[in-house]
Amino acid sequence: MMQVELKDGERIDNLERNNYRIIQHPKGFCFGMDAVLLTGFVDGNTKGKVLDLGTGTGIIPILLEAKTQADHFTGLEIQDQSVDMAKRSIQLNNLENKIQIIKGDIKNAFSYFPLASFDIITSNPPYMINNSGYKNINEPKTIARHEILCNLEDVIKASSKLVKVGGKVYFVHRPNRLTEMMVLMKSYQLEPKRIRFVHPYHNKPANMVLIEGIRHGKSLVEVEKPLIVYEKEGTYTQEIYDIYGMTKGETYER
Amino acid sequence: MMQVELKDGERIDNLERNNYRIIQHPKGFCFGMDAVLLTGFVDGNTKGKVLDLGTGTGIIPILLEAKTQADHFTGLEIQDQSVDMAKRSIQLNNLENKIQIIKGDIKNAFSYFPLASFDIITSNPPYMINNSGYKNINEPKTIARHEILCNLEDVIKASSKLVKVGGKVYFVHRPNRLTEMMVLMKSYQLEPKRIRFVHPYHNKPANMVLIEGIRHGKSLVEVEKPLIVYEKEGTYTQEIYDIYGMTKGETYER
Repeated sequence: MMQVELKDGERIDNLERNNYRIIQHPKGFCFGMDAVLLTGFVDGNTKGKVLDLGTGTGIIPILLEAKTQADHFTGLEIQDQSVDMAKRSIQLNNLENKIQIIKGDIKNAFSYFPLASFDIITSNPPYMINNSGYKNINEPKTIARHEILCNLEDVIKASSKLVKVGGKVYFVHRPNRLTEMMVLMKSYQLEPKRIRFVHPYHNKPANMVLIEGIRHGKSLVEVEKPLIVYEKEGTYTQEIYDIYGMTKGETYER
Repeated sequence: MMQVELKDGERIDNLERNNYRIIQHPKGFCFGMDAVLLTGFVDGNTKGKVLDLGTGTGIIPILLEAKTQADHFTGLEIQDQSVDMAKRSIQLNNLENKIQIIKGDIKNAFSYFPLASFDIITSNPPYMINNSGYKNINEPKTIARHEILCNLEDVIKASSKLVKVGGKVYFVHRPNRLTEMMVLMKSYQLEPKRIRFVHPYHNKPANMVLIEGIRHGKSLVEVEKPLIVYEKEGTYTQEIYDIYGMTKGETYER
């Protein structure tokens, strides 16, 4: 495996798919369970060209390269530090021919690529509405979590323009914004087709939602069985271990 | 308890709340679990005036009278046979001062009542889209199940006009129409605030959805813990027994 330079404060984490590894910076934004669960939700038969909007350190394209049959992945990311780490992670895994990282703004995404040119678009966008003053508006974590540089509508609009008719989009978000999400998807002709709610425990409200939409799809959506994260405190359910590619009982380091 | 006349083919079923009883006709439309779960989902602190759109045999107002503190209930129903049975069930339970059944059309509901005059509106509307020819278009069951005399938009529009600003609406429907439901609720200023999906088993897709909306409510919705119906084949979960007011192991006759 290729050697790449690690910069100050960075570390390499092992992923459990294809022995891929990823460079992260603990003081920056490290990928969370949401990104992993989104890749678990994507149709494994996916082929063709995939675009990930706001790819961060490239976690979604890297995991999807291991899981799907897609030919090529593009990750679009606006933050220099993340772009730089993502590019080195691609090298580290010898995936330069499969995954390309592009620095750019989701709001202009449809000017970087031909319209309707992707089979699949994924995104784990910032969740928090930008409705208050933040102390650290330039912090990578703040930008990744809050709608400072782009909002949900920007992501859905870009997806709608760049995915093929009949192509699929996959988003993970907070369930409390479900109404806005469905209204926006519908208004941009991305018909919701599958929804899965993620609950930390079987008797707790959902804290994530996974949605698959099809551009110009027919109406009617399936709400799948709930995805429960913890069987009990400290122990994931079997399905979570399966999505992470771990054996039950293993601890996931991140 | 008052004696009321039973007509040919009708029967009286016991409800498990306040010893109330209900007249049903097995060849007509008998209430289902959806109506009971909707009443279980309604805020128990409900006060004031309640309207049930498409009340059928009056099951929702009767169960809510037992559960809530509301002063008065109105059930609107278009089918003569159901109106007649509902009125006799109200008498049977001595609820004439609390529940009124009115024959009328949901599409004209806002001409029967003052606008914005109800604190709570409930509805268990027909689920099936009217997109094919039915053999028995005049059959009570067909009318109760299919959007022949009214559709989802009619129900949401009537609710929006008749509920007070800040008042609550409660609907039960099929999850496959979730997108349409949320888009319509939003467009009629009924903001979804609580959603609960009902799954027949913990590992099966949802087959009902319960939604609470608030007229002119703030955005952000909670997706509550899933409601699971069966623990195993033939045995309800404890929560279902609780909602029905039954002891575990009892069979529910209907």
